[in-house]
Amino acid sequence: MKSPVKVAIVGASGYSGEELVRLLLQHPHAELTTVTSRQQAGQPLAKVFPKFASHQRAQSLRFADPNVDSIAQQAEVVFLALPHGVAAEFAVPLLQHGCRVIDLSADFRLRNAATYQEFYAHEHPAPELLTKAVYGLPEYYREEIKSAKLIASPGCYPTSILLPILPLLREGIIKPNGIIADSLSGVSGAGRKADVDYLFAECNESARAYGFPKHRHLSEIEQELSKVAGTTVTIQFTPHLIPVNRGILTTLYLAPAKHFNNAVEMKALGEQITACYKTAYAHEPFVRLLDDQSLPDTKNVTGTNCIEIAWRLDARTGRLIVLSAEDNIVKGASGQAVQSFNILCGFPETSGLI
Amino acid sequence: MKSPVKVAIVGASGYSGEELVRLLLQHPHAELTTVTSRQQAGQPLAKVFPKFASHQRAQSLRFADPNVDSIAQQAEVVFLALPHGVAAEFAVPLLQHGCRVIDLSADFRLRNAATYQEFYAHEHPAPELLTKAVYGLPEYYREEIKSAKLIASPGCYPTSILLPILPLLREGIIKPNGIIADSLSGVSGAGRKADVDYLFAECNESARAYGFPKHRHLSEIEQELSKVAGTTVTIQFTPHLIPVNRGILTTLYLAPAKHFNNAVEMKALGEQITACYKTAYAHEPFVRLLDDQSLPDTKNVTGTNCIEIAWRLDARTGRLIVLSAEDNIVKGASGQAVQSFNILCGFPETSGLI
Amino acid sequence: MKSPVKVAIVGASGYSGEELVRLLLQHPHAELTTVTSRQQAGQPLAKVFPKFASHQRAQSLRFADPNVDSIAQQAEVVFLALPHGVAAEFAVPLLQHGCRVIDLSADFRLRNAATYQEFYAHEHPAPELLTKAVYGLPEYYREEIKSAKLIASPGCYPTSILLPILPLLREGIIKPNGIIADSLSGVSGAGRKADVDYLFAECNESARAYGFPKHRHLSEIEQELSKVAGTTVTIQFTPHLIPVNRGILTTLYLAPAKHFNNAVEMKALGEQITACYKTAYAHEPFVRLLDDQSLPDTKNVTGTNCIEIAWRLDARTGRLIVLSAEDNIVKGASGQAVQSFNILCGFPETSGLI
Amino acid sequence: MKSPVKVAIVGASGYSGEELVRLLLQHPHAELTTVTSRQQAGQPLAKVFPKFASHQRAQSLRFADPNVDSIAQQAEVVFLALPHGVAAEFAVPLLQHGCRVIDLSADFRLRNAATYQEFYAHEHPAPELLTKAVYGLPEYYREEIKSAKLIASPGCYPTSILLPILPLLREGIIKPNGIIADSLSGVSGAGRKADVDYLFAECNESARAYGFPKHRHLSEIEQELSKVAGTTVTIQFTPHLIPVNRGILTTLYLAPAKHFNNAVEMKALGEQITACYKTAYAHEPFVRLLDDQSLPDTKNVTGTNCIEIAWRLDARTGRLIVLSAEDNIVKGASGQAVQSFNILCGFPETSGLI
Repeated sequence: MKSPVKVAIVGASGYSGEELVRLLLQHPHAELTTVTSRQQAGQPLAKVFPKFASHQRAQSLRFADPNVDSIAQQAEVVFLALPHGVAAEFAVPLLQHGCRVIDLSADFRLRNAATYQEFYAHEHPAPELLTKAVYGLPEYYREEIKSAKLIASPGCYPTSILLPILPLLREGIIKPNGIIADSLSGVSGAGRKADVDYLFAECNESARAYGFPKHRHLSEIEQELSKVAGTTVTIQFTPHLIPVNRGILTTLYLAPAKHFNNAVEMKALGEQITACYKTAYAHEPFVRLLDDQSLPDTKNVTGTNCIEIAWRLDARTGRLIVLSAEDNIVKGASGQAVQSFNILCGFPETSGLI
Repeated sequence: MKSPVKVAIVGASGYSGEELVRLLLQHPHAELTTVTSRQQAGQPLAKVFPKFASHQRAQSLRFADPNVDSIAQQAEVVFLALPHGVAAEFAVPLLQHGCRVIDLSADFRLRNAATYQEFYAHEHPAPELLTKAVYGLPEYYREEIKSAKLIASPGCYPTSILLPILPLLREGIIKPNGIIADSLSGVSGAGRKADVDYLFAECNESARAYGFPKHRHLSEIEQELSKVAGTTVTIQFTPHLIPVNRGILTTLYLAPAKHFNNAVEMKALGEQITACYKTAYAHEPFVRLLDDQSLPDTKNVTGTNCIEIAWRLDARTGRLIVLSAEDNIVKGASGQAVQSFNILCGFPETSGLI
Repeated sequence: MKSPVKVAIVGASGYSGEELVRLLLQHPHAELTTVTSRQQAGQPLAKVFPKFASHQRAQSLRFADPNVDSIAQQAEVVFLALPHGVAAEFAVPLLQHGCRVIDLSADFRLRNAATYQEFYAHEHPAPELLTKAVYGLPEYYREEIKSAKLIASPGCYPTSILLPILPLLREGIIKPNGIIADSLSGVSGAGRKADVDYLFAECNESARAYGFPKHRHLSEIEQELSKVAGTTVTIQFTPHLIPVNRGILTTLYLAPAKHFNNAVEMKALGEQITACYKTAYAHEPFVRLLDDQSLPDTKNVTGTNCIEIAWRLDARTGRLIVLSAEDNIVKGASGQAVQSFNILCGFPETSGLI
Repeated sequence: MKSPVKVAIVGASGYSGEELVRLLLQHPHAELTTVTSRQQAGQPLAKVFPKFASHQRAQSLRFADPNVDSIAQQAEVVFLALPHGVAAEFAVPLLQHGCRVIDLSADFRLRNAATYQEFYAHEHPAPELLTKAVYGLPEYYREEIKSAKLIASPGCYPTSILLPILPLLREGIIKPNGIIADSLSGVSGAGRKADVDYLFAECNESARAYGFPKHRHLSEIEQELSKVAGTTVTIQFTPHLIPVNRGILTTLYLAPAKHFNNAVEMKALGEQITACYKTAYAHEPFVRLLDDQSLPDTKNVTGTNCIEIAWRLDARTGRLIVLSAEDNIVKGASGQAVQSFNILCGFPETSGLI
């Protein structure tokens, strides 16, 4: 598309929406024309989010009530930062109006309406679109994103789990069964909603697991793993809430496909893993492979679209442990959506992101 | 009263109520018979607050809907941990039933119904009780508390401001005008209520002032200062919210009544201040006077009923700066209420508190 | 022993030492006579830790240089809160002087000097004591503790891992192999030492793994698991650092010994697990078994000697997931040491702890 | 100067240095050629700070031992992020080599060597440069910065205090005496140095004052206020440490030059203040004037070079209260230094900063 591309954000008052505003205001090839929010309708953007007041473009923006016709008139590409279920209500008519839609909700991430119903507990509102949507994980669907009309941007946990596992699974380095993903998430992941559970004094000085053993994000994680593995993959996933604003740290417990029996075999396997990751990610601008002396730390990725990945083989247990760190709101949500936007529009993939 | 005294907590699901539960469960002379909460009615206490499950007494307690008759039947002393306005609705009938009432709300802290209306924006619900209530600041109203029927436990900010200032004002060491109180409070001070402003991700990595220049607590602070000064005292008060669960740190800017002009006079004034504080507080179990090498730190008082006080004279400006640190929920609320309870019942004042 | 028992704390200026001071000052059957610290020698206790200034007993205490003779003269029971390696230097002569020693370091937790050398990288300083020391996990070594001369109090991570696993392993409910322990720890676990890695601005807004795959605590964890399992147990253990002062949350991934194939078998296994935990812990004052609607949260145990345990069976993966939460400095260190002290001296086990 | 300008950062491993790296790596007109650090000499930049690894330019950078000759060869403009005293040792020879120097330390902020000695407790190492250095507060010294050889970038507290006060003082709206500045700072302000006082577990859940009543920053604050007031100004300043990584919130207590006696006069004064701030800052890209419904919050400025300013008149006390929020490491240090760099080199002032 021709720069600048006119863009809209539907649901711009939540954490992902706010981050989209930040990224798109500073984007060299996007012109943010519309921000909507039922709650903040009528309010100037700079009033609701004072931190944007210094961006010249932000000064004329005002939250609007979300109206499909007016959104479609003012934007070629529309970002949906809405709850699942609600997103589909906007995606369908916006696509009919000819807009490209980048949906940050879970509504179009699954290819199977029955799985959606199993995990999200309501019938899928637009099952006919499921096969047309592209899963917006650029490192794996770059080609499809280029010509997509509807991009389903991945969830925060799935991104932190899929990027480290997919290359290993694709090359058969690990077994597809027995995978365990243990994740720690910042509180922004719960969204900007009034809920006693997420009050400062409830989360600070607290660490707790939640939403397991059957978290909703399992559905898209297992879909993508199964696709690459060529077999049905079922994983264990335990999310935890920790007192940081941002960031997901994921620890993955994996079984090498071929057991190593001594230091020589362990070294050989290590070299295979290194090569595998290099092949997959050495040229990826947002994937940072750490060496054997460094470990991922969420503070190294906060505010950026990068994911850090490191791994260790354990001589005592024979396991491969892989760790990743990302900003749940950037690479795990809004940054990744902008990365897809760049690909979709033919801009350099890092535009507005580095 | 005869130990153990049967006590009830009305509104036991907020932060002050929860802390009252903790203190009264471990109190050697109290028997907690009733905890009420509209929201949690019917729930076992140990279910709502798992941390109390290990206290044997807690295991049989269940939240009840607040009912005056049944509270009065089961408790001799009733603690009200309710919003202002609501507290009076319970205090009036409970007093008629013969209960002693310790109210943690603002409803009975003022002696003047018009001032209440000015600061709390509604007519006082029971003005006839205002002259009968005792302001529950033990260091100043110990005698009155002994025979009180209704104790109005002070606010968190007022406690942190009054205890450091009152002795100086009483002895005429500082001028009654021009006082500035700058306070930092933990987020628990905002209460356990669903409000986006107090979400973890809104308060963490944030510092902000709020509720000034006319915060409600000014009314009781100025009432007590004026009483001791013998003249109308108007102060400047700026509360700030900082990302800690608990604690208030107050910095007071005061003008010595007699200006010092040199090191000798400054030293003499310092000795006078030291003597003044020693006279006032050396025997107070919960007031900790720091020496000239230490400064108050909220982490030293968290979870305790103590307040730390330190002061410095500034040779450059001629001002006296006094700092205090307390736990807003303990000395600033529930601990102080239990201290009053001990006095009221004739128990050692530190029972259940050290 | 006869109450009050005279006690000393060697190394009282670190986090565990400070917490021992707190617990022993308020202990009804202990008289804290000596606190030592090379760094703080000569300083009044109340000066170094202002928060203890309000305890009457604390006012006469002063940090001493650690001297075995004078410690032995003034204390019947000595708590060592020293780094590993250093602790043994004090334990040996103190035992010779007839003191009972409760060591919070790792020096006497292992029964095998070679394992010590493997994990702690130096020769064991007093291997002859290894067989005489009792591992101070009261829930499993209560009888041995009663007559112990030297108690090796368990590490923080081991406590959080052993208490949930041991009953399951003992009853053969889980397989001894394939165990994964994923733990999150507060920063106090790193000790009160000047190190850039643990500065506030390095830890806040950060989550990271460290010290794996071969953390030192593995040695004592595997020793105790192996003993109960009757076979050599090797586990996977990944500790993480999260920005809380206190608390360890551990997530355990376990394989039931007998696979369940349907809801009926799953329910039966669940009942077996419930029964197993009840048998093991229903009468333990510091182990809190949560129901199937609650999950452990570090904030529920902070400042207490309790550990929370909950479990879930995953119908999708066949795994048993068990979670625990404890205060790393209390049940994970000083509180557990005091619990052993109570047992050793014949006092009620909860003295000074609830 | 001609873009890109070659720049060096001396002392790049502290918090200010690291932030300079971030800002200069993404700067469109700067080419970062040299980063020095005694501690990290020889290490690749991307190894010490993994978060920069994704910047292409960063990949070839390696920390060097600071050597004046080689720095001067490789850079036209040199940023010094060194402790006071040390900075002057580099500034002098670098200036002789013809470099422009932007010093973030306190070494050249004062015009008077005696004042330096009074506040910094050692003789000034290069007093002859004091009159040549320009105080790098762009909003007030823009013209002088353009031709400066040596820019003394202001301290973090001074920036947060001077920007709100200077316009009021210049226009005579407030009295020059009696000013009180009460500031809250994040822990990064203490620098990246191993010190027990700044450990996570010492700062988290803590609030405390420090370094008053005679903090070093008073010297430059009073120098600048006095200059604008045309009379010697002595202020009260109390810094506090709060548990955030970044940010300074300052509350200023000011006395209007002309007392207002009623609502009409108060309104008139308010309009005068509004006009004064608009005149001073409406066109400043980094000063954000808030309206009467908003208050500064550090979270709105974190990571940006903006300062938020708001004010309130207090009808009860007659005082003017002004609040400001800034990121102590950006507008309070490295961002402001880059702003000066932009002015010095003739680039748009917001280059690399918005």
